[in-house]
Amino acid sequence: MGYAPSELALVPFVSVENMMRIVHATGIERFLAELARYIEEDFRRWELFDKTPRVASHSREGVIELMPTSDGEAYGFKYVNGHPKNTREGRQTVTAFGVMAEVDTGYPVLITEMTILTALRTAAMSALAARHLAPDGARTMALIGNGAQSEFQALAFKALVGVDRLRLYDIDRAASRRCARNLAGRGLDITLCGGPQEAVEGADIITTVTADKQYATILTDNMVGPGIHINAVGGDCPGKTELHRDILMRSSIFVEYPPQTRVEGEIQQLAADHPVTELWRVITGGTPGRSARDEITLFDSVGFAVEDFSALRYMRALLSGLPYFDKLDLLADPDDPRDLFGMLMRAQPQAA
Amino acid sequence: MGYAPSELALVPFVSVENMMRIVHATGIERFLAELARYIEEDFRRWELFDKTPRVASHSREGVIELMPTSDGEAYGFKYVNGHPKNTREGRQTVTAFGVMAEVDTGYPVLITEMTILTALRTAAMSALAARHLAPDGARTMALIGNGAQSEFQALAFKALVGVDRLRLYDIDRAASRRCARNLAGRGLDITLCGGPQEAVEGADIITTVTADKQYATILTDNMVGPGIHINAVGGDCPGKTELHRDILMRSSIFVEYPPQTRVEGEIQQLAADHPVTELWRVITGGTPGRSARDEITLFDSVGFAVEDFSALRYMRALLSGLPYFDKLDLLADPDDPRDLFGMLMRAQPQAA
Repeated sequence: MGYAPSELALVPFVSVENMMRIVHATGIERFLAELARYIEEDFRRWELFDKTPRVASHSREGVIELMPTSDGEAYGFKYVNGHPKNTREGRQTVTAFGVMAEVDTGYPVLITEMTILTALRTAAMSALAARHLAPDGARTMALIGNGAQSEFQALAFKALVGVDRLRLYDIDRAASRRCARNLAGRGLDITLCGGPQEAVEGADIITTVTADKQYATILTDNMVGPGIHINAVGGDCPGKTELHRDILMRSSIFVEYPPQTRVEGEIQQLAADHPVTELWRVITGGTPGRSARDEITLFDSVGFAVEDFSALRYMRALLSGLPYFDKLDLLADPDDPRDLFGMLMRAQPQAA
Repeated sequence: MGYAPSELALVPFVSVENMMRIVHATGIERFLAELARYIEEDFRRWELFDKTPRVASHSREGVIELMPTSDGEAYGFKYVNGHPKNTREGRQTVTAFGVMAEVDTGYPVLITEMTILTALRTAAMSALAARHLAPDGARTMALIGNGAQSEFQALAFKALVGVDRLRLYDIDRAASRRCARNLAGRGLDITLCGGPQEAVEGADIITTVTADKQYATILTDNMVGPGIHINAVGGDCPGKTELHRDILMRSSIFVEYPPQTRVEGEIQQLAADHPVTELWRVITGGTPGRSARDEITLFDSVGFAVEDFSALRYMRALLSGLPYFDKLDLLADPDDPRDLFGMLMRAQPQAA
């Protein structure tokens, strides 16, 4: 009798190739701006989400994490790894995929690659935070660390904040050159710099997005002038930080979800009760963001499940108008739900 | 320039249809027996696993869970939902899929449907436990609850324990009839019974596998004679039990992972310090299983992540010799791992 899966059994799947098609069909800057709007909407209803720190499995070489959350109607989770040594073997440091399901039925309704999508949502999140925290009229950004996340940051800050001057620095000068080449022709005035000190000259915003898994000091205290906004992206797991502690002590610190950031973010260097502001409180208007011209604001970004949820929600909206997905026969769907065994037996190949 | 994913970017995917092909190519009883062997191997090295209770997201209608574990070399997790009302809309109560990844790289190496696979592993686990706990020479099993899991239980007990007489009971007699029909011609002597009391007459083993999410009393104390083995499968989440508390008080209780079973299993009815034996200690031989002819043994099964890990491991072994999988373009794999953005840009469709 064989087996023909019904529509209920099929789950839309976005491959890497289709994700790239979707980004190009949308336009990358528009994609970043719309994604930021989805994140902003979810931060406005922050209290509604079922929140938990990610479930991490650490090993000598890296970490594998599951990041679930739910708004009561939809449930989403992301699988993501972080393995800094992967690049030596031609693999990505970070790869990810995500799943969205209906809470009422538990049925998955979307499976998607999230390596590219995470790069986009991280950049959209950074730029969204900067829109609330950076000084008015910020146009110049120092971008320190010119690896896989750097171009996404640059374009998100262009699309959402109005940044049009970039000052690049990476310990690997070839990385800076590639970043500049990838961003050519997009209306950005780009300067390659010989060190972090040179990169921060005249910058309104400093974005740090380096990859080494260690306590590093990309920025020292003397490099950070009054009024600047720091977007600290690279310090995102235990034992991995980028900023000198003295900078943190002078800054107003904004975070996504304190129970996670205190373990993973720059503030792992500080006392457990050091005051921080949850970004959702700024976005809803309940708490001020930047309150003085010479204030140093710091967004201690680690990436939280709600942002991935927003990204999955945005993908579902895009797929309602774009044909760039496959359908996976993932869910066993017998005619009679109590007869799973019968479905299996009816699928048995007949003897010739 | 376009995009052609490399082998590193492709993840083997087992659809529902391919899972059924694999089960038939292997033979279902052999599949159950081999799967039990994989579970037994992993229970023998139990202490090596990174164990955590499942991460559950409860809602009014059901629950969505992630069940991760790792043996230090491989990492596996299962997504599974439980929504008892789903059957009203023609959906499964439980659907599942699973992922296995390499710990050293964090790269997924297998994605598979697990609705069918979970039905098989649950049955294999039950029969494995019974092999260590049921009375010698057990041939007659009462099977109470004749829904989607029932036939799998029957065949696993046939393949692993030698059960060849089944006594079926379900509140829905049509379910019992379908179960009997599905199992016809497999060498099982099957009797349909009018109630639980009739079903347990002469049984060496009682398997309870009912589906209602409530505190139920499928078995009362007077139905359970000395020397019997009870395989309690259906009581597997908070608020869902099948056995009267008095039965538990007379039984030697064996469990998978106490921190999870105390919340989800039959023993949620008992004090938090009620003595139970971890099954892995019996399987390794460190602790006796059944120690007297008239002892009542109870396997309080809830399903634990290590069993899903064993099932994923078994699937990987089977796939090395069978062509029944697809390859998913799930992992972004740029030529230069630091140049994710460049890969995205090179995939841009050229203007005509």
